[in-house]
Amino acid sequence: MIVIPGPASQELGKKTAQLLNAKTVDVAFKRFPDGESYIRYEGELREEEVIIVQTTSPPQDTSLFQLFLMADTAKDMGAEKVVAVVPYMAYSRQDKRFLHGEAFSIQTVAKLLEKAGVDQLLTVNVHQQKALDQFPFPVRTVSAIPLLAEYFKNRGLEGAFALAPDEGAKEYAIVAAKILGGGYGWRRKERDRYTGAISFRDDKYEVKGKDAIIFDDIISTGGTTADAVKTLKMQGARRVFSACVHPLLIGNAEKKIMDNGAEEIVGTDCVPSLVSKVSVAPLIVKALAGKEA
Amino acid sequence: MIVIPGPASQELGKKTAQLLNAKTVDVAFKRFPDGESYIRYEGELREEEVIIVQTTSPPQDTSLFQLFLMADTAKDMGAEKVVAVVPYMAYSRQDKRFLHGEAFSIQTVAKLLEKAGVDQLLTVNVHQQKALDQFPFPVRTVSAIPLLAEYFKNRGLEGAFALAPDEGAKEYAIVAAKILGGGYGWRRKERDRYTGAISFRDDKYEVKGKDAIIFDDIISTGGTTADAVKTLKMQGARRVFSACVHPLLIGNAEKKIMDNGAEEIVGTDCVPSLVSKVSVAPLIVKALAGKEA
Repeated sequence: MIVIPGPASQELGKKTAQLLNAKTVDVAFKRFPDGESYIRYEGELREEEVIIVQTTSPPQDTSLFQLFLMADTAKDMGAEKVVAVVPYMAYSRQDKRFLHGEAFSIQTVAKLLEKAGVDQLLTVNVHQQKALDQFPFPVRTVSAIPLLAEYFKNRGLEGAFALAPDEGAKEYAIVAAKILGGGYGWRRKERDRYTGAISFRDDKYEVKGKDAIIFDDIISTGGTTADAVKTLKMQGARRVFSACVHPLLIGNAEKKIMDNGAEEIVGTDCVPSLVSKVSVAPLIVKALAGKEA
Repeated sequence: MIVIPGPASQELGKKTAQLLNAKTVDVAFKRFPDGESYIRYEGELREEEVIIVQTTSPPQDTSLFQLFLMADTAKDMGAEKVVAVVPYMAYSRQDKRFLHGEAFSIQTVAKLLEKAGVDQLLTVNVHQQKALDQFPFPVRTVSAIPLLAEYFKNRGLEGAFALAPDEGAKEYAIVAAKILGGGYGWRRKERDRYTGAISFRDDKYEVKGKDAIIFDDIISTGGTTADAVKTLKMQGARRVFSACVHPLLIGNAEKKIMDNGAEEIVGTDCVPSLVSKVSVAPLIVKALAGKEA
């Protein structure tokens, strides 16, 4: 077994190889002045099972294309099997045709990955589980929410309240609360039938004088999280933290969240960023070893 | 037959449809805040031959990915045949494995286009003709050099000298000279065996007191063209023009060329830019009608 740390997941790829005690083959990569990607394997892959670790966070299309190049080249070089570890799976929100004539993006990605030579896919907290139904080869997703909850527990946050910022994230709050032991809740998102405006309906959460942590899979532009921080503060929470698996943090997302009163944002290295304080390497290693559902 | 003007070639696609007197189906497209592309066809494609016009100039990977989405969605919607018109074909410089372990990028692109549902490809002045050998479906390239030479001829430049900035572009100067009638030449690029530095060997070109035009397929960072402009001016050329099919013009390429004494840069709409003064729509229409070799 050989691990390939791809251009978009250099550190995570190396950590994964270390934990697996597996050989790595490095990829020399560059982008030409015009923006084209170049990759070259600095070692042999013949008859090997190859684990390519490459996230597809922004710039998504370039990260995906590098993955296509790596998988195709690995097969050309005689690799026996290519497992793609894609911690953040791009285009998994377009998981069906919502309107007539729309691209079914994740289905296209799945087809192209197969053609490029990917035999198996492992991803972390895919936004919609059913996005994975489109893949014509074995695929699984594992959850980094327990790792995030443990991170806070180990830093004295045992007993903190776990909030999901919308119904879609409800499971995350339930899972985190099992580890933190401070109860959980979730917000209800409502869309005005006429104006399209989004508002939230809140319960009274048990946060008065207590710490609270918001758990979500993706923080994109940060609006949903920022609003949840504000609500928790208004309901009397002592300190509010934001935890997410995929810290995309587009534009001024971080500032928005912090300005609303958050203490800290904690993400994982599924998406390399300044807030990626939790590594999913142990999770990936367990999943590759088949020890995790 | 239905023409689809893709996001990267809106104007050229519309012009092509007009000349063909063909129906178009528009593509609603956007990019989400995180950078993902979205496309939706605003019409039916069932049992139609569909011509998707989509260049793949920078950002190459995004333009390619939009092409994958458009082809795949067209087939899902029942299109009978998908012809991709890709005026600028990205990754066609990586047309073989130069070093062991390298990606053979154009081969990967070709495989993915096939999988996405492309049945036929038409491109303009592909950088390496042999890049096209990798495609598993019918593919052809046509040359826009005659259109560029005509453009100058119609603007009083008959009799101008045609220069190719390196041996690879020699054919372009020969073709242009047939139209302009002012002779041609080409520069010889040399790479120092020890330092890797590039230098040029020049003949004495017949440019003294005459206008001259440099013909090339791609202007990327502009260094090669800028150097050729300087040489022609030093050899006594009156006015020097730069003509290219694909004006990528990365960074300050335009300034470099103009600062060295060029009068004007003229490109085609294979790559939409401020210098895209020549449309390849008539060329594409002829090629689609099978009237052009």
